Amino acid sequence: MAKKNAFYAQSGGVTAVINASACGVIETARQHKDSIGKVYAGHNGIIGALREELIDTSKETPSTIAALRHTPSGAFGSCRYKLKSLEQNRAEYERLIEVFKAHNIGYFFYNGGGDSADTCLKVSQLSETMGYPIQAIHIPKTVDNDLPLTDNCPGFGSVAKYVAVSIKEAGLDVASMCDSSTKVFILEVMGRHAGWIAAAGGLAAQEEGDAPHIILFPEIAFDKAKFLKRVDECVKKYGYCAIVASEGAQYADGSFLADSGTVDAFGHKQLGGVAPTLAAMVRQELGLKYHWALADYLQRAARHIASATDVEQAYAVGKAAVEMAVAGKTGVMAAIVRGKGKRYSWSIGEAPLEKVANVEQKMPRNFITKDGFGITEKAREYLAPLIQGEDYPPYKHGMPVYARLKKIIAPKKLNTEFKV
Amino acid sequence: MAKKNAFYAQSGGVTAVINASACGVIETARQHKDSIGKVYAGHNGIIGALREELIDTSKETPSTIAALRHTPSGAFGSCRYKLKSLEQNRAEYERLIEVFKAHNIGYFFYNGGGDSADTCLKVSQLSETMGYPIQAIHIPKTVDNDLPLTDNCPGFGSVAKYVAVSIKEAGLDVASMCDSSTKVFILEVMGRHAGWIAAAGGLAAQEEGDAPHIILFPEIAFDKAKFLKRVDECVKKYGYCAIVASEGAQYADGSFLADSGTVDAFGHKQLGGVAPTLAAMVRQELGLKYHWALADYLQRAARHIASATDVEQAYAVGKAAVEMAVAGKTGVMAAIVRGKGKRYSWSIGEAPLEKVANVEQKMPRNFITKDGFGITEKAREYLAPLIQGEDYPPYKHGMPVYARLKKIIAPKKLNTEFKV
Repeated sequence: MAKKNAFYAQSGGVTAVINASACGVIETARQHKDSIGKVYAGHNGIIGALREELIDTSKETPSTIAALRHTPSGAFGSCRYKLKSLEQNRAEYERLIEVFKAHNIGYFFYNGGGDSADTCLKVSQLSETMGYPIQAIHIPKTVDNDLPLTDNCPGFGSVAKYVAVSIKEAGLDVASMCDSSTKVFILEVMGRHAGWIAAAGGLAAQEEGDAPHIILFPEIAFDKAKFLKRVDECVKKYGYCAIVASEGAQYADGSFLADSGTVDAFGHKQLGGVAPTLAAMVRQELGLKYHWALADYLQRAARHIASATDVEQAYAVGKAAVEMAVAGKTGVMAAIVRGKGKRYSWSIGEAPLEKVANVEQKMPRNFITKDGFGITEKAREYLAPLIQGEDYPPYKHGMPVYARLKKIIAPKKLNTEFKV
Repeated sequence: MAKKNAFYAQSGGVTAVINASACGVIETARQHKDSIGKVYAGHNGIIGALREELIDTSKETPSTIAALRHTPSGAFGSCRYKLKSLEQNRAEYERLIEVFKAHNIGYFFYNGGGDSADTCLKVSQLSETMGYPIQAIHIPKTVDNDLPLTDNCPGFGSVAKYVAVSIKEAGLDVASMCDSSTKVFILEVMGRHAGWIAAAGGLAAQEEGDAPHIILFPEIAFDKAKFLKRVDECVKKYGYCAIVASEGAQYADGSFLADSGTVDAFGHKQLGGVAPTLAAMVRQELGLKYHWALADYLQRAARHIASATDVEQAYAVGKAAVEMAVAGKTGVMAAIVRGKGKRYSWSIGEAPLEKVANVEQKMPRNFITKDGFGITEKAREYLAPLIQGEDYPPYKHGMPVYARLKKIIAPKKLNTEFKV
């Protein structure tokens, strides 16, 4: 087979470790110069391919590429842009393949969540029928940890660590002042419809009475009376109540506690504002002094407190994706497989994209305590290994030193504009 | 002089390093067994003295005391409780001195901000007139960095580092997705009427175009039109706009952008909600997609990303306070003095409490750029050394290991209740 170039793109919300996957892809491709030529990266994700804005990663030095391993966010740019179905917009897929063909791209590495797994699969299928076969490999990434067929998703472990450390620290803060000041503290975290991130907050509680005392999961219907009763009990018992609330917390009828009323480009509802909503309930019904925090992007960008396990796995799925491509695979995802032993171990496996695309993996009910406010030992066993280890970035003058890329766009070969 | 015991208390909002000061006090006192007997710590601050709830720190092991150095929050408990003026409530001061007398306490170490400096001074003065002299030494602490006569306040450097690192990371996140998603990001930070913490966010910007692009200081009257114009310019120029907004941001007439309408026990207004207020303006007037974060307690509790300089200084002021007491001083504060050389250096000096109490040190105007939206080189020179160095806590199973105290209350000697 003639040597082909590769295309790599970052999709959807970025994470503290998605660049570690990029690092894994590029470094591994550079080790396979016999089968892979250049690695182009999509400028702002898949949009970059549609616009024929391909960043030539060969222009970046080995040390810059190595620094991606400890750099948060999407270094090449990402986007929330879901390709429509083949029926709705076949032209988009054809454009993609046209761009790939023009740049002799035979490998497509798509680094994202469920939506990008779907795109990846379609590109793989359509390229066959169009007579320009492209090996499409999906590299998992999502802080929400909601992809199926992988034990966990790169990006999640670091958010999990951030949330667990943050609620532990803030909990100590509140505990030390609750006698005369704030009695209720609420930390709102990400996760959409899956409570994985909120659940990770539970790792902070190591002894009876430790924060968090209440976790609100999207999987458990919110019951205001029950919630307020528990808050009151905690304040009476421990002097304060620390709460981790998922942005996706919802009532029994499926309506969100805080629905901003807008949707993103994928058609997902934009969530946010659970913490102030809960705080208002606490003030109105219990009259307790409260504080709340909304970490928002801080949590998924917090490379400074990344999980070493997460960083290693993010790199490993990028590396494995390239190795799978070189081995002739297509339409698969590089998945993380947990070892069976009592001691945590993991390896990389592969999962067929047909079974990955558009499936949302929620928390098993037995990960949540019967009362719906905490995590079980089973959840703890699953979550704890994912936040293991610290992987600090280098610092200079007190600040982390993150990669700065040149991002040189390869000369265009098509003289057609494509509007996205 | 007969050997006296010491009393140490934490006051007001806690920090990532106030326990490092406690560690400095207790470890140093243990080295001066000839002049200092036991060190009692106030259970929940000065309230503990009034209630005669004195934690006997001699019951804590050397390793637990050493662990205070890397433990955030107030390990002995703190409070927002300002003693009234002598005229208004002389009984409170008399009670304090009565408790001190009952427990043979001759040294009073008060670890807090401007209000506690004031209390410290009054105790020192009144004890003289009551014929039971107490050496009262103030140990500075405030994330707001608003104490006079000290180059900076322990606690500030770590919040500064947290804010600078956080806006850098979140800025990279927004930058990587702004082409198709969020264009404006707002991080609301603490600081009350002083813009020191907001200013520290400016350290994240190292090259043209880096986040943050706008800083809103309490010292600069907020001008909505000017602000929105700048946001729009940044989005056009850099693709996005990252903003650090002080909770104390205010209009020209002195009204806060987001005044929650409540006050704390010190009579200070409770602030919060600037970020959503600004976000609403951005949406309504510019129609741009935004996200915002409110770090709240996370920022001042973030021991995991503490400044090594801050930790060292916090320990040093605690140590120096004990040494001053042993040397016979009273009515003074252990202050941080910056060296005159080009290379940053610091030492410990002393400041008379008369000149410290109830004085709020605001940012000099020449620390803020002419347009009011950024920090000057002068501010950078002042701030940069304060975030130098990382001082990571130890970790076990992926989580920081913080001190857990026994907090054994010494037997009461007075059989009188005192209501606080």
